[in-house]
Amino acid sequence: MNLVLLFPDDFISERLVRLSGRRRDHLSAVLRAEAGEEIIVGLADGKIGRGRLLRIDDDCAELDVALDTDPPPPLPLALIVALPRPKVLNRVLAAVTSLGVKRIFFINAWRVEKSYWKSPRLSPENMRTQMISGLEQAKDTVFPQVELRRLFRPFVEQELPSLIGGATALAAHPKGSVECPRALGGEVVLSIGPEGGFIDREIVSLEAIGFRSVHLGPRILRVETAIASILGRLF
Amino acid sequence: MNLVLLFPDDFISERLVRLSGRRRDHLSAVLRAEAGEEIIVGLADGKIGRGRLLRIDDDCAELDVALDTDPPPPLPLALIVALPRPKVLNRVLAAVTSLGVKRIFFINAWRVEKSYWKSPRLSPENMRTQMISGLEQAKDTVFPQVELRRLFRPFVEQELPSLIGGATALAAHPKGSVECPRALGGEVVLSIGPEGGFIDREIVSLEAIGFRSVHLGPRILRVETAIASILGRLF
Repeated sequence: MNLVLLFPDDFISERLVRLSGRRRDHLSAVLRAEAGEEIIVGLADGKIGRGRLLRIDDDCAELDVALDTDPPPPLPLALIVALPRPKVLNRVLAAVTSLGVKRIFFINAWRVEKSYWKSPRLSPENMRTQMISGLEQAKDTVFPQVELRRLFRPFVEQELPSLIGGATALAAHPKGSVECPRALGGEVVLSIGPEGGFIDREIVSLEAIGFRSVHLGPRILRVETAIASILGRLF
Repeated sequence: MNLVLLFPDDFISERLVRLSGRRRDHLSAVLRAEAGEEIIVGLADGKIGRGRLLRIDDDCAELDVALDTDPPPPLPLALIVALPRPKVLNRVLAAVTSLGVKRIFFINAWRVEKSYWKSPRLSPENMRTQMISGLEQAKDTVFPQVELRRLFRPFVEQELPSLIGGATALAAHPKGSVECPRALGGEVVLSIGPEGGFIDREIVSLEAIGFRSVHLGPRILRVETAIASILGRLF
């Protein structure tokens, strides 16, 4: 936790914040913070600043908070990911949030197992927990917007074209014909297939609306590794 | 598992391989492979090819194997990572192996907790298991060489200078003065600090032997995300 994320409910007056539970425990057990110390804080979807710890006891911590800095800029990206296995979903959400992705679509694909769509990890509460973890890691405050699309074709044919607009649309695909480009300026829409990849028919659908299928060399990476690697390359 | 990694002991004749346990189970349960099918295989530290499944039963699977292709090229990189928390170590090892890193040093640093060095995850057996997972993911066969260095100063002052040789030496550091470069040609030595980063004194030691400290922007990433992102950027 490199930033303690605050919510409007935490404020007991204009500058005074009271924390209990996980965040109090972290201040106490991990940061070993003592009264008088300053801690980096940020208001959810708002500014970043510092909180001076006024007191910390077994129940709660109180901070005097001044918020004066904008959060880091978002990546100019919409990320489209075939819904990963539930275990992987948590890691992907936290990682892409930490990387600055602000728009994520989890979509269906032929090789996405149907059972994945029933996972409790898709609950808004769980997804929010993972995003909080990513924001606290990256010293950011702005939650990504996450959307689920259980039908590939209607999403690709009806919704995706207007999402692309003037952006560069790339589909990461092991059989892609060209190498993934580097340091692109401007907006990007990036789609990442499931384990085993998009099937040919899906790639054809994506190419039909303007996606270029690009490869990352001969190695097949896990989805969370692939995303971090591609974003490092693109931005 | 995008490649089934074979070991000399698996061969019962020049081309005939017999697999039991984890790999048989994967062929059966995940790939649902049947006799006659071809599967991508590779010999540990050797060539890649195809194995035709001759038979598969509850105990074992037999394949007729032909190995004719070189594994993907290694990254021209030595990676130096402050020993991460045991839980993270497994993920880091599998991820960097999948990315093609062939030389890894886990080193001590001020912010590495002493207890991490006592973790059973540092056993050669566990580390080998993680590397196998990374190789099978990435369709590679060549094991990275992993070394542990429990003393920061002697490693940096006596061993690291000759390791650098003519390579570009970069230390990822949130307070680094310049942005991490892109698409470097040639050999790179990259060092990554612990959670919370290298302390100033450690950065001074690294800079004294030729490291440039480079940042990745305002976001602080988890070690496994940071490594994937930097390698995507550099290579």
